[in-house]
Amino acid sequence: MQLPIDITSLPGALQRRRQQLAARIDLPVILWSGGSPSRNFPANRFPFRASSHFLYFAGLGLENAAIRLEAGKLQLFINEPSPEAALWHGSALHPNDIAAFMGADSVHPLSELAGYAQPAVTIPVQDQATLALQVQVLKRDLPPAQALSGGDHQLAAAIVDLRLTHDQLALSELRQAGQVTIAAHLAGMAHTPSAKTEAEVRAAMESVLTAADLPTAYASIVTVHGQVLHNTHYGHSLQAGDLLLADVGGETATGWAADITRTWPVSGQFSASQRAIYELVLAAHDACIAALRPGVEYRQIHLLAAQTIAAGLVELGILRGNPQSLVERDAHALFFPHGIGHLLGLDVHDMEDLGDLAGYAPGRQRSDRFGLGFLRLDRPLQAGMVVTIEPGFYQVPAILEDSDRRSAYQDCVNWQRLADFADVRGIRIEDDVLITDQGCEVLTAALPTDLEQVEALVSQSLCNPFASPTTTLD
Amino acid sequence: MQLPIDITSLPGALQRRRQQLAARIDLPVILWSGGSPSRNFPANRFPFRASSHFLYFAGLGLENAAIRLEAGKLQLFINEPSPEAALWHGSALHPNDIAAFMGADSVHPLSELAGYAQPAVTIPVQDQATLALQVQVLKRDLPPAQALSGGDHQLAAAIVDLRLTHDQLALSELRQAGQVTIAAHLAGMAHTPSAKTEAEVRAAMESVLTAADLPTAYASIVTVHGQVLHNTHYGHSLQAGDLLLADVGGETATGWAADITRTWPVSGQFSASQRAIYELVLAAHDACIAALRPGVEYRQIHLLAAQTIAAGLVELGILRGNPQSLVERDAHALFFPHGIGHLLGLDVHDMEDLGDLAGYAPGRQRSDRFGLGFLRLDRPLQAGMVVTIEPGFYQVPAILEDSDRRSAYQDCVNWQRLADFADVRGIRIEDDVLITDQGCEVLTAALPTDLEQVEALVSQSLCNPFASPTTTLD
Repeated sequence: MQLPIDITSLPGALQRRRQQLAARIDLPVILWSGGSPSRNFPANRFPFRASSHFLYFAGLGLENAAIRLEAGKLQLFINEPSPEAALWHGSALHPNDIAAFMGADSVHPLSELAGYAQPAVTIPVQDQATLALQVQVLKRDLPPAQALSGGDHQLAAAIVDLRLTHDQLALSELRQAGQVTIAAHLAGMAHTPSAKTEAEVRAAMESVLTAADLPTAYASIVTVHGQVLHNTHYGHSLQAGDLLLADVGGETATGWAADITRTWPVSGQFSASQRAIYELVLAAHDACIAALRPGVEYRQIHLLAAQTIAAGLVELGILRGNPQSLVERDAHALFFPHGIGHLLGLDVHDMEDLGDLAGYAPGRQRSDRFGLGFLRLDRPLQAGMVVTIEPGFYQVPAILEDSDRRSAYQDCVNWQRLADFADVRGIRIEDDVLITDQGCEVLTAALPTDLEQVEALVSQSLCNPFASPTTTLD
Repeated sequence: MQLPIDITSLPGALQRRRQQLAARIDLPVILWSGGSPSRNFPANRFPFRASSHFLYFAGLGLENAAIRLEAGKLQLFINEPSPEAALWHGSALHPNDIAAFMGADSVHPLSELAGYAQPAVTIPVQDQATLALQVQVLKRDLPPAQALSGGDHQLAAAIVDLRLTHDQLALSELRQAGQVTIAAHLAGMAHTPSAKTEAEVRAAMESVLTAADLPTAYASIVTVHGQVLHNTHYGHSLQAGDLLLADVGGETATGWAADITRTWPVSGQFSASQRAIYELVLAAHDACIAALRPGVEYRQIHLLAAQTIAAGLVELGILRGNPQSLVERDAHALFFPHGIGHLLGLDVHDMEDLGDLAGYAPGRQRSDRFGLGFLRLDRPLQAGMVVTIEPGFYQVPAILEDSDRRSAYQDCVNWQRLADFADVRGIRIEDDVLITDQGCEVLTAALPTDLEQVEALVSQSLCNPFASPTTTLD
């Protein structure tokens, strides 16, 4: 086993997290790391990814392990590797060494966990086999993590309170994820001129993550059909007039994510219509970032984006009316149907396993308004939070061709004018932003958003890594 | 949704498979495709991979679908996409169109499946959420797929009988997986001189698969520590004297796998000791392939590899004694501890979800011998089977430093001579081979195994795709 991070800072940082948890909850806590689910047969597994709550307090993605936290103390439960595991998977660190590395107070085989299980609280993991183990060890049923009650809910609320803002160890990891992800986007831009398909651009981007030994934090979106918001098909060929939307992010070995979107022209040159909409989305992006600071309601940031987009669309002649009234009627959501962003941390939608417990302040819940229902974060901002800012413009057939919506917004959309922008199917610009005492810091600012810079990055002439090797066999 | 394969040949091929199944089992059959397990939160999922048995009869990786087969007829059960799915995931094909594409006789929403469930038999899927659905629809408990009984076991045996040999559609897919995987290995060799870490070579290889829109069929092994048989860490830096072992394979959009291993010198030049062992492993590889034909026992192919390796090690002075006696004592397994290969098809270890039902002929079971216990296939070969041939030589500390083994083989290992080969930690050479009426065809033969050719492929001078883009930002 290789240790993925600086070993000197880990035990101290983990101890502070444990103490902060102990200050918020009096019950003993057990967190399981989980296992990797089988793919098509038991030995063919998906890559292991530890539960984020485990990672937060254990600092390492240990498979099939558990930690017990009580009054700031850490007990690690993990088995020694079997002789067969040594043959197939190599010699692993001994549990004692792992425990020392984490600063654990004691280490035990997993079989002893049941003896320490009462009256511990927990968060149910996503891995179903481990979930069954949680139920067996705790001797009680567990609902899904988004529907906890009693002590488990208390634990979830305490963890949310902690994980909402990031300590130095977390920020160092988030910055690292951001840096590698920036390099991946630069590679995607640079390789687009020589790529024939979405898949080739995706390959150029993900290979930068893979080369740095970072998995993707989520399923990459690399598409000339950006109007499909979570498009995970990569089969389209690239045409000169297309915009390519790439929403790709890596996560570090200890699980911290980046989440960046850029949209660039396949040809290296935006058309006039694409340029107009790109500038509008960028204006919304910049306006939101300029407004971020502690105390500001994130919902107001969302509405600022909506307002900026609505005003811009009025200026372009696509919408008619007063921008503020248009936003009140959710007319912006015809073209910007999702939220302005979300929390970012160990999960790309941080703590979304807990439903809206992290995203929504106590007492708040999702709106049923068309223009607000997809907002994933509705809290006052605090220094130390990391959020994404990701305005977009899309022509989604399921929205724009819906006859109810067309008649509801008949008076305020100029469909004829909209047709002039047919080559803009989807644009999104997304950065990761740390809220600071003074305002904010864009963690991913090194990746240009400026239109001319993006054009220049796409127009570089680089080697095509996929063409060369296969031609050498002749 | 994009259709991954030639649409004209699919319905006919699927119909033949259904008829062949109907000729082998009289009971109605329901096969579920499964869903993708959640990663760290419910909406963040692993890439979907349909159950292989479903793929064999449905031809398409449809998520959350089921098919019912009876007397050669095909009923498809799948829901129409919700309006929200259209927003986030784009417009999908209508169930009627999918049904037409597959040649289904009827199509139904999933809610109707329970009405057709008695007395159907099934194979339990790996996805735990879908497994719960199977239990609910069939109204009975299901054991793991490797421990079926009654009608489910009859079904599994019938499917094994069918899937053991491949039809033209399957072979066409297996060839495609092989071709792209060959290009991936060529890229790995070509990019090794400019790579600093295992991860960079892995990236160069997997990016070729990704660019062709093929997922990996299994977790890639790209390592300078080839003695760790299933090594899935990529953190080592590459040193000039190292051998790099790469076991990487893609699978096509409809699930058919390739499985290739090559071992090459990081410097582009094998040392004398590496050259000697490489030639020995290659001799075993070639001897096994030369012996493949219908009627031959695959276990004899394994023993032929063992014998070739033992004889070569005697010649090199590493082992002492008569090669045949050494193999009878399992002395070859000190250095070649795994089996010579396995079935290949929709799964890289084909049908291993059914335990040894596919790999072992009826009445046979795994040996407890050190040199035979890891053999995954023990059947007489038939035309139409695809198997891997993958001999290797490894210096596994867990084996060679085990004091019991050292004393058991004290008389036949020259440890001092072995020390001359310290720079050979692990070598494996693996190809995918179709058994034909006349003998066999190596599906992956276009990727050289010849030592000089491998050296030449590594010594090409290609651009480094990971260095360029990040340097353009200054």
